[in-house]
Parts: sequence; C-alpha cells; structure tokens
Amino acid sequence: MISNKMKDLVDNSSIIRVMFEEGKRLSDIYGEENVFDYSLGNPSIEPPENIRVAINQILNESAPNLVHGYMNNSGYEDVRSKIAEFLNKKHNINISYSNIVMTCGAAGGLNILLKTLLNQEDEVIVFSPFFGEYRNYVNNFDGKLVVVPTDINTFEPDMQVLKDKINSKTKVIFINSPNNPTGVVYSEKVIQNLGKILCDKEDELGINIYLISDEPYREIIYDNVKVPYILKYYKNSFIVYSYSKSLSLPGERIGYIVSNTNMDYFKDIMTSLNVANRILGFVNAPSLFQRVIANCLESKVDVSIYQRNRDVLYNHLIKIGCFCIKPQGAFYLFIRTPISDDKKFCIDAKQFNLLLVPGSAFGCPGHVRLSYCLSYEKIRNSLPAFDKLFKLYEVK
Amino acid sequence: MISNKMKDLVDNSSIIRVMFEEGKRLSDIYGEENVFDYSLGNPSIEPPENIRVAINQILNESAPNLVHGYMNNSGYEDVRSKIAEFLNKKHNINISYSNIVMTCGAAGGLNILLKTLLNQEDEVIVFSPFFGEYRNYVNNFDGKLVVVPTDINTFEPDMQVLKDKINSKTKVIFINSPNNPTGVVYSEKVIQNLGKILCDKEDELGINIYLISDEPYREIIYDNVKVPYILKYYKNSFIVYSYSKSLSLPGERIGYIVSNTNMDYFKDIMTSLNVANRILGFVNAPSLFQRVIANCLESKVDVSIYQRNRDVLYNHLIKIGCFCIKPQGAFYLFIRTPISDDKKFCIDAKQFNLLLVPGSAFGCPGHVRLSYCLSYEKIRNSLPAFDKLFKLYEVK
Repeated sequence: MISNKMKDLVDNSSIIRVMFEEGKRLSDIYGEENVFDYSLGNPSIEPPENIRVAINQILNESAPNLVHGYMNNSGYEDVRSKIAEFLNKKHNINISYSNIVMTCGAAGGLNILLKTLLNQEDEVIVFSPFFGEYRNYVNNFDGKLVVVPTDINTFEPDMQVLKDKINSKTKVIFINSPNNPTGVVYSEKVIQNLGKILCDKEDELGINIYLISDEPYREIIYDNVKVPYILKYYKNSFIVYSYSKSLSLPGERIGYIVSNTNMDYFKDIMTSLNVANRILGFVNAPSLFQRVIANCLESKVDVSIYQRNRDVLYNHLIKIGCFCIKPQGAFYLFIRTPISDDKKFCIDAKQFNLLLVPGSAFGCPGHVRLSYCLSYEKIRNSLPAFDKLFKLYEVK
Repeated sequence: MISNKMKDLVDNSSIIRVMFEEGKRLSDIYGEENVFDYSLGNPSIEPPENIRVAINQILNESAPNLVHGYMNNSGYEDVRSKIAEFLNKKHNINISYSNIVMTCGAAGGLNILLKTLLNQEDEVIVFSPFFGEYRNYVNNFDGKLVVVPTDINTFEPDMQVLKDKINSKTKVIFINSPNNPTGVVYSEKVIQNLGKILCDKEDELGINIYLISDEPYREIIYDNVKVPYILKYYKNSFIVYSYSKSLSLPGERIGYIVSNTNMDYFKDIMTSLNVANRILGFVNAPSLFQRVIANCLESKVDVSIYQRNRDVLYNHLIKIGCFCIKPQGAFYLFIRTPISDDKKFCIDAKQFNLLLVPGSAFGCPGHVRLSYCLSYEKIRNSLPAFDKLFKLYEVK
C-alpha cells in the first residue's frame, strides 16, 4: 500500500491523466491539427544550434571520465566560476563559484533549498496565483503553505496582507517573476517594497526570512521589460534558475541556485545545499549538461517567436471582450473566466477542442491559464474556437 | 539558520571534507602519484566508445525538442519498452514499459520508492555493512532504519535476526548485491531463503513487505558469478538500477526502477512513482541520456580491468595476513582491521599515504573499505605501503 502522503496526490494525478487522455481522445476523433492544447508548458522553440555544437566540442576535447564522472555535489567548480563571472558582468554584482550550486533544474533547486531551510510547521508564503508544485515541494518537508493574494487587476502582491501573515513561524517567501501563470514581471518598486517589508519584519520578530526567487522565465521577456536582480534588494535572498525555458532544455534537468554572499548563515547554508543535493538523491546536476551550459551562457532561444504568439492571442482575446493582463514575460496568459466556475469553463472549452487549465490549480479560481507554446499557425487556427466559447456566456 | 534535520548532516559532512582536504594536502606534499586514495567509488574505467557514437547519432537523427524536451515523468515509453524487452530476454521474465520508471540514477530511484512506500515511523531493514546513504534516504521520509547483521565470515544476512526484527511496522527490506562495501554477491539459495521468510512474514502479520534490490553493481562481476534476478523469487520486489558503474556514467544520473507485475497495489505504486519523480523535483531522468542508454543496452565497461585490480590487491593483502573475503563483484575490498578501532586504523594508514574509509561509515566497525577504482600501476605501487601499515600491529 502506498504512503498516506502519496494517496491524495495519486488520486489528483489521475484527474490530470484523465485530462491528458481527453486530449488524446479529441485528437483521435478530430485530428491532432484540430485540437488546441493550451494546457502544457513544454517549450515549443528549438534549442539554439550551439547546444549541439557545444556537446560535440566537449565530447571531442575532454576525457570521457571528466565529462560523465562524479564531481563535487555542488557541481564543477570551473562551470560555477563561469556562471558567477557571467552574472557579475550582467548584473553588476560580485559573487564567485562558492555562491553557486548546480541543480537538477529549478525543481531540484527548490527542493534542496526547502530541505535546507524548513523545520516541520515552518511557513512558506506564496502569492496567488502560484505554480501548483510549490504546494507539493513545501509538503515534502512538512512545511505549511501560506497563500497571500495579489491585486486581481495587476497580480502584484498585496503587501498589507503579506505584513499581516508574516509571523515567527515564517521562514521562506517564494516569488516567481516572470510569473507562471500570469506572465507578470515585478517592477523594481515592487521588489524594493518587498525587500523593505521583509527586512523590517526580520528586525521586528528577530528571525531570518529567506526570499527565494524562482526564475525559470527570466530570459522569456517582451517589450524590453527589466527583471530586477533580487540579490541587490534583499540580503537573505536566493535565485533559483533553470535552462529549461531559456535554452529549451526542460528534459535535461539543468539549473542552479545563487545565494547572496552576505546572507545570514551563508557557510552553513552552502554546505547544507551541497549535502541536500546528495542525500535527496540528486547527487549532482547532470554532468555533460553542466559543461554544455557553461559553453552557452550568452545564448537563448528566439523569444520573438513567443512574442508573436502572445500578440496574436492576446489581441484577439481582448478584441472579443476577454479580461486579461498583457504578459510581460513567460509564455502564459491568465484570463478571467466569464463564469466563476473555472472548472466548468474548461469543460465547456473542450467542446471547441480547446484544452485549458483551471485557475484553481494555481490557487486562483475564476481564471484559466493558456500556455501559448504552440505554433503560430495553430494559435491563429484556434481563434474562432475562442469566439464560440465566449459566445456561450454572452448575455442574450 | 538551517533546519534541525540538516544540522547533524552538515557537521558530519565537514568531517568528510576534512578527509578530502587531507588527501589534497598529502598530494601537495608528496605528489599526487604518491598518494593512494582508496576512498572514492568513482569509476576509473572509461565509458564504452559507443556512448559517444550514440550521442552523435541521436543529435543527428532526432528533432532537438524530442531529445531535450519534457516527456512522461516516468520516462520515454519507447526507451522503457526497449529496456523491458532487453530484461525479458536476459532474465526470462515478462514485463513491459509499464513496469519501468526511468530515474535520476539509483539514488533518485531509491528516494522515489521510499516516498511512495513509507509512512512516518515505518521500518526499513538493511544488512550491515550497508551503503551509508541508506540512512539518509530513510530519514528523508521519517522512516526508521533497522540494522540486521550479517555473518562476519561470509557477509550473508543473519536470517534468524531478520525474522526476529520483522514486525507490523516493517515496510521495506533493502538488499545490495553485488555489495558495497563487501563485494559479496548473494547466491540463489540466499535469495530463495529471503523470499520465503518475507512471504511467510507477510502472511503471518497480514502486511506488505517490499523488497528493494539496489543493483548499481550488477554488471561489475567476476569469475562468472551469477546474480539472481530478484523478481523471480519474491512477489513484492523492486529492482533499482543505475548505469553509473556499468557504463561509467555516474555524473549523468541515469537509471531505472523495475517493479514486479504481480506485486500488491501495482497500479497505485506505479502512479505514485511517477508523481514522486515529479514532486521530489527530479521531474524526469535526464532526457538525452535516456535515449543514449536505450542505444547501448548490450554495452558495458571492460570489467577485466577491475578484476585485475582486485586480484593484485586481494592476493597481496591475503599474503601479508590480512583477513578479507574475495569480492565476487563491485570494486571494493572490505578488510578486517587488526585493531578494533577502525577510525584509528584509517588515521594510521595516512602516514603511508593510504586513504581508506572506516567500516563504521557502513555500520560495521572493525573493518575498512578499499575502493580499487585506481590504475593498476597505482595499486601495485601502493602495496609496500600496506606492508608497512600492517607491520605496525604485528605482535613483537
């Protein structure tokens, strides 16, 4: 018999599976080209060509045992040094390899951070809507997820509620900007404000509050928006990064954590992240891809492709009277549903072969998420389906 | 401040770090060629050449998004099917892709299994000496590690103590054959006996006891010894496999779990493993290397190199009066120390530039582990150092 903790998760996962099967069923009936699957966040842009070049070069030039062997659980020192140099130049900071732990993607990074920081019942604050996996990650370490709402018109954190919710059990605050599912990017003003509140609360309560900025979408930004670099605004801060989206390598599980040099307990924390990487079973980030990304630090996917997708979809939805914020980053639209029951809305959408994810999955009912990692043609072809869907709810 | 659970681990890890620094210090003084580091289990044989061929072929022939993208959290179905077919033929069994979950090495596999099976306080039985990480993995899920000794002359499990220790809280038994640190391979008779005991205990107590066979060393065997395939001997059994040693790819984190088809709660368990892979942050086994190993199922490293190492080291140690069992697999020798304090023995060894790991780290004091993943030349050059070391304890 499976563990009690897993039982609910298995039951829920079969609901997701039913949805997935539904997509397959629709494809079988109507043809794959006529089913508009906006449910998956699987990058649709190809990785840059120099990924392949880098792999070949590494295999040709390095001894196999140095490419595929064990290394320090925090990753190759030369790879971490290259990343540190790159970040120093880009963000005008001053870190070294010792601030960095290579991780199995952002998911791996978040888990070793929570293993490092959380005692049972410690509280982790997230802003809704939030990436649903945060709930599971916090639960892995018996922490308590505390949800703070955002302004429904801007999706910026409600700072007054944040202040009210912070207490002596608060250990971690998650932010995710560019945001999944809203596409919102927090401005410098928001980040400054957040840093100030956390700083004041640390003093007031005599505790450490660690800010974890989950940034897999940092490079997926539009209209030259700036994404503030969190280390400059708050002492006890971490950045969790992933190459899943910026280089379209989600299957390879490669990313890193950066810890702020002047944070409290820096040395203990870095040692703990190293040990947690090992004992949680990651051991180390995949070795070949550590070397690959070190050779491709300046590369990223062609974001203009996502931008074109965003524009055609957003403009059409606004035109037909839908409410949503124009995303400044990531590849999602989070639209307000014309009925409060977002799950029913998703079921209704299926009759037009539209697969959407209910906002409830992100702690924000009354909305749905559309992932526009589809081909431009498919998005264009799907527009009449949205017309028909929204027509269902027009006041007659 | 780091979590309470991590505090002890961080303190212990700094002891390991001290040992590591000691190795570096000795190398700086005496030259790297004069330091004999028997402490690390880092495969010294190069991966077979067809790993490189497979990578090139996959990059040339497949669309990048199919090589580096997301897939089912349990892994590519075609890769799992190929592994199932390979195992069916090799072991005369009858499994399919649905029995297999691709994992981030054996460490990832063991962790998602324990996440799936353990409730707080559930007991996990290991046989000493055992791979020290088992203690951490069990602790990750608040289980209780129960140590059952082995016969000190054969390192085979003490079946009577096993029977005595099994109770209604027993959920999992770990075996590891070929064994780290002893090199012992359990015979068919041992496995049959174990299967019978577990089966009887399940009936007697009305519980499920899951047998997990951790097999990263399955292919590293000598003298044509047979390693029984556990699925044929016990219903509720899993195999956790890794390519770290068989293909010398420890940094790439690639392996799999096989679950027995007729086990209790098979469907729930497979779904739970899939979900656990996701929520623990592995998400999936690295995608390129899933495809690589599917192309290299018949390959393995040249084991004769390890065998030559074993022979020269074992023969010499026996000659100078040391007690140890001749390993039938893996790349370790587990020798009885001439003094009961194995930690002191390791400190004494350092004066001859020998780095060894105390048996206490494997729950078996009075022994030390030697990992013979070194060059043959280095092993030969180290032999006089062992002479001098053992001479220290000769009765004068």
